[in-house]
Amino acid sequence: MQAPRNQWYCAAFGRELKEAPLGRVLLNEPVVMYRTADGTPVALEDRCCHRRAPLSRGKVEGSNLRCGYHGLLYAPTGAAIWAPGQDRLPPGARVRSYPIVEKHGWIWIWMGDPARADPKTAPAYDKYDDPDWAAYDELIPVKANYMLMVDNLLDLSHLPFLHASTIGSPEDTNPELNWERGPNWLKGVRIARGLSPSARNLLEGLDFRFDRTQIMLFEPPAHVTIDILTNEYGKAYGDPTSRLNRRIVIYDFITPETDRTCHYFWAIARDYAIDDPKQTELGLRATSAAFHEDSQMLEAEQRIIDTDPSSPQIDLVGDTGGLQARRIVERLLADEGVTTAAAQ
Amino acid sequence: MQAPRNQWYCAAFGRELKEAPLGRVLLNEPVVMYRTADGTPVALEDRCCHRRAPLSRGKVEGSNLRCGYHGLLYAPTGAAIWAPGQDRLPPGARVRSYPIVEKHGWIWIWMGDPARADPKTAPAYDKYDDPDWAAYDELIPVKANYMLMVDNLLDLSHLPFLHASTIGSPEDTNPELNWERGPNWLKGVRIARGLSPSARNLLEGLDFRFDRTQIMLFEPPAHVTIDILTNEYGKAYGDPTSRLNRRIVIYDFITPETDRTCHYFWAIARDYAIDDPKQTELGLRATSAAFHEDSQMLEAEQRIIDTDPSSPQIDLVGDTGGLQARRIVERLLADEGVTTAAAQ
Amino acid sequence: MQAPRNQWYCAAFGRELKEAPLGRVLLNEPVVMYRTADGTPVALEDRCCHRRAPLSRGKVEGSNLRCGYHGLLYAPTGAAIWAPGQDRLPPGARVRSYPIVEKHGWIWIWMGDPARADPKTAPAYDKYDDPDWAAYDELIPVKANYMLMVDNLLDLSHLPFLHASTIGSPEDTNPELNWERGPNWLKGVRIARGLSPSARNLLEGLDFRFDRTQIMLFEPPAHVTIDILTNEYGKAYGDPTSRLNRRIVIYDFITPETDRTCHYFWAIARDYAIDDPKQTELGLRATSAAFHEDSQMLEAEQRIIDTDPSSPQIDLVGDTGGLQARRIVERLLADEGVTTAAAQ
Repeated sequence: MQAPRNQWYCAAFGRELKEAPLGRVLLNEPVVMYRTADGTPVALEDRCCHRRAPLSRGKVEGSNLRCGYHGLLYAPTGAAIWAPGQDRLPPGARVRSYPIVEKHGWIWIWMGDPARADPKTAPAYDKYDDPDWAAYDELIPVKANYMLMVDNLLDLSHLPFLHASTIGSPEDTNPELNWERGPNWLKGVRIARGLSPSARNLLEGLDFRFDRTQIMLFEPPAHVTIDILTNEYGKAYGDPTSRLNRRIVIYDFITPETDRTCHYFWAIARDYAIDDPKQTELGLRATSAAFHEDSQMLEAEQRIIDTDPSSPQIDLVGDTGGLQARRIVERLLADEGVTTAAAQ
Repeated sequence: MQAPRNQWYCAAFGRELKEAPLGRVLLNEPVVMYRTADGTPVALEDRCCHRRAPLSRGKVEGSNLRCGYHGLLYAPTGAAIWAPGQDRLPPGARVRSYPIVEKHGWIWIWMGDPARADPKTAPAYDKYDDPDWAAYDELIPVKANYMLMVDNLLDLSHLPFLHASTIGSPEDTNPELNWERGPNWLKGVRIARGLSPSARNLLEGLDFRFDRTQIMLFEPPAHVTIDILTNEYGKAYGDPTSRLNRRIVIYDFITPETDRTCHYFWAIARDYAIDDPKQTELGLRATSAAFHEDSQMLEAEQRIIDTDPSSPQIDLVGDTGGLQARRIVERLLADEGVTTAAAQ
Repeated sequence: MQAPRNQWYCAAFGRELKEAPLGRVLLNEPVVMYRTADGTPVALEDRCCHRRAPLSRGKVEGSNLRCGYHGLLYAPTGAAIWAPGQDRLPPGARVRSYPIVEKHGWIWIWMGDPARADPKTAPAYDKYDDPDWAAYDELIPVKANYMLMVDNLLDLSHLPFLHASTIGSPEDTNPELNWERGPNWLKGVRIARGLSPSARNLLEGLDFRFDRTQIMLFEPPAHVTIDILTNEYGKAYGDPTSRLNRRIVIYDFITPETDRTCHYFWAIARDYAIDDPKQTELGLRATSAAFHEDSQMLEAEQRIIDTDPSSPQIDLVGDTGGLQARRIVERLLADEGVTTAAAQ
């Protein structure tokens, strides 16, 4: 599926932008990001206007970025302000500059018409850098179209199968599931009761049955937040007699790299044991293992699709979320003049 | 060259089908094979009807195969019999099932119209599992069109050159060679006398001159059997005064994977020293080395062809077998409505 | 940019042609080179006329080359003179033979119309094997169109940036630069004064300021010679009171492999310390490091160009040489009936 351009996409974790410029292909375009001396993030076309060398092989000088080939110097606006051997720069000596915003620890980029980019509309996913929460994160490169990952995240019926040996519980095959759709969002509530501990739970020492509520929120272009409440089986969430009252928020932001590859930025924030580095270490390792089960399956799925893109597929009850999300994205694409085949 | 579909192709050695499902691309289609609880082989489309994940990443449950992504369960017929979240499965909840037969230790698959698949017509190459013979085998993946391997096996004039340092004898350049053609087979008898021992012969302790008769049998789509009789130079095969009376049968079954890659299944059965594991070990190692000389040359040949597919080639006397085999396959393709360029 | 065919291209260093045949793709054609028993170089099509195996997998026998697959034997003319199983060879039993010349240690090949190849017109770059000079060399394979390397070599304004940590001096941003163009050549003189020593200079023990004259000579199809004179800052070259009077000649011969890859043959000859192997060793190591900075940048440039070949670029003063060279090559291509987009 194609990707609408007039949207804020996750371009990086804020922690990724350091002294060296960072090159990344986003929506098929090479982009270079860096921070100016005062820390402000900048995003430029990663292609020198002179001989098309990638600027990400250059270096930052104060607020500017110098090409590593012949030394052209670019201001954050994308205008070249120095070139070798001449005092006056020719017309066209500039690269594209992309609107970019840092908010709550995330770097957001606007790949469409800059005139339509309002930084105030950049997403505010606020648990990631909230001092009352602890978070860990990872960027997983995935060789699959970005919507395959959206499908994955909105159809959690895969948990007991794909993640049987990591985060899935075998009883999790018959949850309550309800969807609600707004003009520009989609929300699903999935409740499962009496689950037995997963392999990961056992690693954490959680060895009794529990109830779990997963609240999935999809927002275009490809942002899925999953808010998860877990409590001891049969107790209410928050009940002090429950041996377990946990809330975590999973952020899943997927940005197309090419038509068949994407950047999967995920983070998990928790509101308990926030000062316990062991929880962070265990969580990062165990979650990464599970989410790589996803990326590997999606890559296999993409390879199979590519052997015959016209092969049919059926939809199940669990696909409600993914199909609705595709409808929302199709409408955004239509607004930009892109026609899509139904349910592609 | 394309491949006719209404044929039995070798899909695997029987020994390859164990508990885990086995995924393999055959004639450009992803196929998954497994054994049911009672050992019966099953072949299905390796693409879940739901979201097109490869079923080979799933697991066998009794007679059925479960998808490793969302858990759909497939019967050996290809019909889905369970899916998450719903009791009734939608129409189209099935994958293709391929006729498959196990015979004499080989797994045969029918990639064409199932109504035309008669298991009785599956090949019966019977020395491979004959208790009076000893056999070893190997699957070599080859990045070349399958007919390049057929050409190779039907033109043994390459022995003294390509295999100069393994199984070739330098004198083997002027054999008697006669071809006979039936409606659906091709047979060549190649007799060479007074050959000096090859490097491999010397490894075996065979250090005197010998005579050798090679009886090549081609049967479509791409099966070559080479029955080889060897005896001391000047004696008759079977003469008890001959220091050597050996017969081996080489099975070479080639199955297209894609248009430019194939699966080369080979096995060698011998009727002597059948209880000697050292003979098996030496034979496997030495033959594998020689047959990899073939696969590497064919891959080089394919790469050169790809630089300019229209570059001309000439035919020599030794090409009689390969050219006749292509005629047979072309006729089968024509029966299926596929037109081929002459001698492609 | 395409490559004119009726030109002498560098095919190899003479030292590369030994007993074994050498296969190399030149201008998209597979070529095999070898030396006859008397040392004469031969270049043939690297594709047997029989089954299109690469002859570079064969072996040299006296003056001839034998195919490693079925043993066809080729004379230096390209005519097959032996084939298995038959006394008379069919018409067409030959491969293409390319005019080839060894001159001053270089192997030159003519990929166009053999009737137009005059060995006397093969380039005579004579310092490489001159006993009064010492030389070292390297072949760098580059995944970029050959003209990107020509551009690189004719625009040395990249020295202080791309080579900042190897052979560049930071002051080298404002040289005198003058170009002169002949009917079939292009010459640039670039003079920089008062340069501080580069990282490499410091390795050599050269720790004072110097003046440097670089005389660049471009000759089609893609040969760049850079004659470099260096002397102590403020003295004349050759002045016996100068602590430094050095001349080196850099030969850069670039031969297209495919449209997006090339062979970069470089050599450096020096007229000082010619018997000092340490100078050779240091020079080879330090230059190779610097020239790999070039090849890596060009490969990055090519990848960026490939993401959008229509993306614009601007020209600077330093591009005079590269642009003029492209004009010369475009004229040669036009002579061969090839039309090129301006400045592509």
